[in-house]
Amino acid sequence: RGIRVGYTPDVLTDATAELSVALLLSACRRLPEAAEQVKSGGWTTWKPLWMCGYGLSDSTVGIIGLGRIGQAVARRLKPFGVRKFLYTGSGPKPESAAEFGAEFVPLTRLAEESDFVVVTCALTPATQGMCNKDFFGKMKKTSVFVNTSRGAVVNQEDLYDALANGQIAAAGLDVTTPEPLPTDHPLLSLKNCVILPHIGSATYATRNTMAVLAANNLLAGLRGEPMPHELKL
Amino acid sequence: RGIRVGYTPDVLTDATAELSVALLLSACRRLPEAAEQVKSGGWTTWKPLWMCGYGLSDSTVGIIGLGRIGQAVARRLKPFGVRKFLYTGSGPKPESAAEFGAEFVPLTRLAEESDFVVVTCALTPATQGMCNKDFFGKMKKTSVFVNTSRGAVVNQEDLYDALANGQIAAAGLDVTTPEPLPTDHPLLSLKNCVILPHIGSATYATRNTMAVLAANNLLAGLRGEPMPHELKL
Repeated sequence: RGIRVGYTPDVLTDATAELSVALLLSACRRLPEAAEQVKSGGWTTWKPLWMCGYGLSDSTVGIIGLGRIGQAVARRLKPFGVRKFLYTGSGPKPESAAEFGAEFVPLTRLAEESDFVVVTCALTPATQGMCNKDFFGKMKKTSVFVNTSRGAVVNQEDLYDALANGQIAAAGLDVTTPEPLPTDHPLLSLKNCVILPHIGSATYATRNTMAVLAANNLLAGLRGEPMPHELKL
Repeated sequence: RGIRVGYTPDVLTDATAELSVALLLSACRRLPEAAEQVKSGGWTTWKPLWMCGYGLSDSTVGIIGLGRIGQAVARRLKPFGVRKFLYTGSGPKPESAAEFGAEFVPLTRLAEESDFVVVTCALTPATQGMCNKDFFGKMKKTSVFVNTSRGAVVNQEDLYDALANGQIAAAGLDVTTPEPLPTDHPLLSLKNCVILPHIGSATYATRNTMAVLAANNLLAGLRGEPMPHELKL
């Protein structure tokens, strides 16, 4: 007989959505670059447009994959003054979208109209490499791209070109290809790219919840009982 | 006769509240430290508690100064799963607090019970040096301190000690004493302190709005007409 496999669904939705917003704000308001200016002495007298970024007020936010995490991101971004939510994916999800008045659009329109693009979809053959040269080429020069799903959804060479050439304003990545990303990767040389080491679920509360659930899955499995969450393929 | 002075009220509320949340998330989820690990090669295999931080889910948030910016911060934090808002200041503000069910408490209780403290009050003789050794000593070891008001509300030597000794978990400052902060300041040596160069209002949209309002004040003044916003002392 096969090996039973337990997993820990849902428990990381809040932490990952929170990290997605943290990464979006860090990229659009240029936090790492600004903090670096404090340390390097670049902070001098007040200048009207120094370290200015793009805020969420009156913006259009496009979400790729309006699942549990995508909805949790939209819920958190809404009170920042977002004017309009767009989303794309395998098909319209009227019930999920109703809370935000989000409009289902093709990927192309999402790229063209969004001030912020947040990727929270699953990695599938359909989404692999989806954010490529063609996609970034349709985005606005003032737009910000955030990926907290899986690195392979993005063509990293194309993202590098878009950031280096000013085709988009900034990016925030919690996921890369490969992980860990080599420390000499070109993306790490860019001031307008914030890269985190896959810490979406890294809060003490979430990791403790995951540990307890994993332990209970294991104990149930050892006893031959139904697991709290068992992977059924 | 005296010199007429114009100013630009209200226009930076949204940008500053947004930056306050960005700074809070950056501090509590350890973004600068995590990004540095990517660059330095500290990111290796998955470890259960590596780079874990403290999330907003089920937390208590204490706001010092529930004015326009404080309310705008609370509005943005609410959907992150905040359980309870506390606030303090010159007196209860039932109408401002109603939207968040925020409870007016003395400064001491706010320090003791908050998982996150956000300072958005004005600098006055009453608030100068208010966040000092006594205040930080009452905060939880897992709590995060954020100041986006004025640097002098905080005793920076006491904050340094609290952060260095693990009395509190992390801090985020958009304002310091003096500004710019000297590049050899001890606070800049701490991994758990995020310092930004006073960029609360630094979005292109906000700075453009400020510039137009300032110009209209000036033009009205030159014509001897009422200014859109004139400082009356």
